[in-house]
Amino acid sequence: LTDFPLNTADRAATVSSAGERALIERIRARAGSGAAAPWITLGIGDDASVMAMPRGEVLVSSVDALVEDVHFRLDWSTPHSVGRKAIAVSLSDLAAMGAAPRAVLVSLTLPAGFALADFDALVDGVVEEAGRHGATLAGGNIATSPGGLAMHVTVLGSAHPRRILTRAGGRAGDELFVTGTIGAATAGLGALRQAGSAGARGAADLADCLARYETPRPLLRCGRRVAGQRAASACMDLSDGLADAARQIAQASGTGVCLDAALLPVHPGARRWFEARQLDPVAAALSGGEDYELLFAVPRRRRRGFLAAIAHSGGISATRIGELTTDRALVLRQNDHNLVLPTGYSHLG
Amino acid sequence: LTDFPLNTADRAATVSSAGERALIERIRARAGSGAAAPWITLGIGDDASVMAMPRGEVLVSSVDALVEDVHFRLDWSTPHSVGRKAIAVSLSDLAAMGAAPRAVLVSLTLPAGFALADFDALVDGVVEEAGRHGATLAGGNIATSPGGLAMHVTVLGSAHPRRILTRAGGRAGDELFVTGTIGAATAGLGALRQAGSAGARGAADLADCLARYETPRPLLRCGRRVAGQRAASACMDLSDGLADAARQIAQASGTGVCLDAALLPVHPGARRWFEARQLDPVAAALSGGEDYELLFAVPRRRRRGFLAAIAHSGGISATRIGELTTDRALVLRQNDHNLVLPTGYSHLG
Repeated sequence: LTDFPLNTADRAATVSSAGERALIERIRARAGSGAAAPWITLGIGDDASVMAMPRGEVLVSSVDALVEDVHFRLDWSTPHSVGRKAIAVSLSDLAAMGAAPRAVLVSLTLPAGFALADFDALVDGVVEEAGRHGATLAGGNIATSPGGLAMHVTVLGSAHPRRILTRAGGRAGDELFVTGTIGAATAGLGALRQAGSAGARGAADLADCLARYETPRPLLRCGRRVAGQRAASACMDLSDGLADAARQIAQASGTGVCLDAALLPVHPGARRWFEARQLDPVAAALSGGEDYELLFAVPRRRRRGFLAAIAHSGGISATRIGELTTDRALVLRQNDHNLVLPTGYSHLG
Repeated sequence: LTDFPLNTADRAATVSSAGERALIERIRARAGSGAAAPWITLGIGDDASVMAMPRGEVLVSSVDALVEDVHFRLDWSTPHSVGRKAIAVSLSDLAAMGAAPRAVLVSLTLPAGFALADFDALVDGVVEEAGRHGATLAGGNIATSPGGLAMHVTVLGSAHPRRILTRAGGRAGDELFVTGTIGAATAGLGALRQAGSAGARGAADLADCLARYETPRPLLRCGRRVAGQRAASACMDLSDGLADAARQIAQASGTGVCLDAALLPVHPGARRWFEARQLDPVAAALSGGEDYELLFAVPRRRRRGFLAAIAHSGGISATRIGELTTDRALVLRQNDHNLVLPTGYSHLG
């Protein structure tokens, strides 16, 4: 493409010296017009994008943001992993609805001095992560600003209207299942805070926790499979922690919740990290955010179908951790005591 | 709603003292769940929003951002007008496609000390402007940050796939028409820069220019009417100025362009303001951004239909200003000279 005026090998080149049009052309080239899915009939570069919807399906949309020094630090994470994570955490909202990803729109705020090579790496992370889940980068916006880097990602997906998982469908008596393990992202973030990037990366035991913090994987196949089988009554992702997700589902469903501390699948590496710092692993894993696992409410008569759907979700596990209750209390059952569920998670800031 | 912990009468209350959940509840209350359009089957408060698409129509989506001290200043504009403008400028992209607005998603970055009363005013501006054009505030995201206020607005609209206006459909020989007048927003912004808010508002002559800068109106009815009649071959809004829009349409359509300086509908108040400052009104109005008028390419045999569509667009005028040309040059015809079209517009920064 002849209208790329700048060479990424030049580390001094910045986004503000390139200008918005040149940046959009760079994105278009990196996204690869040939890679656009057939349902994207008009992609990057016009006033808007155009997408055909599968017949009989509804649009499922969400927006999420990663803001520098609130959700990430560029001395901890590379631009490539920030680009990937911004897409992943937004797609996780589609996973929690049981929707299929179709397109992403990315609105960037860039510091004027942001290096063009870092911009390219960030865009590559966006394109890779979107492509991994079948979504096309279909549009966006770029503004340079006096503040830091921010990525606001809109995800556009589709689903059959009667196969959508909300937070509000739970009933008292439904069992709660959580996928995978919890607490790993919190331990990874904690290690970065305490030891910085080099220090945390030096601890072999923490590699998985760091990876879970930096490059979470949205459980799209799992959410779609469970929703497609109508095997759950409610679902939410753990962006703000398991305690928060359990509370949100209970409140939206008009029930209480009781979680059993002994059943919680705390990540083993995270457990060791918490215990070495005299932190209660259960409390830390419950309150810690950014796990991007899914919490499902499952009617008892659907348990078998639910577990079958999970078994077909590509190596995902699910653990029964409690249930929705008739009375409206939010309870953590631990050592024969009923405790109040801890509150949720706030980000770096 | 019992879970609003804060009283807006308290000017000391800030968004960071409220927390994201409380802010989302405030938005939900101000948006009014009863006001949601019937096509929004799941609105604010779940992991994602769900929207039914009209049968046979495609999704038209776009994202645009207003960033503090880049696109607006809070000592010039009220939070209410910033909220309105963020929605209006994003909807203008749907107008340029000929699409019907359906929903907006708003991703906010708020300074920690942002007053809750200002937050409410901003949300009211969002809800008012979206509602004025038939769009529902269907979701969003809130992050507080060390930086300034930013609003990233995703607009979701729909259109018949064969009634969409792109930049790329123009042909050599098509006439170019622009709606309304140009230059007013530039003069309004210039007055704010030179005289500050109080000074600019003291000049009665500038009231219309200031209003055009602060609360542009997206020409949705006009865009839809022209697209519905297939009366134009290409369209773009003037977010970055008329010269930029003409260049974009020509480049996307594989043509050149020739604009006639004598035909340009420069806003009378803006003309006086430019002339009083020894600025060439034509150059200033061509390069100045944020007019949010529409530029159409119209095949000659469609001129009558185009003008009829404009006449049914609710008091909008359109002026013929030039044409697309076979050779690829970008020309401004002025006083019998062919000049190179000036370049476009950059925002405050």
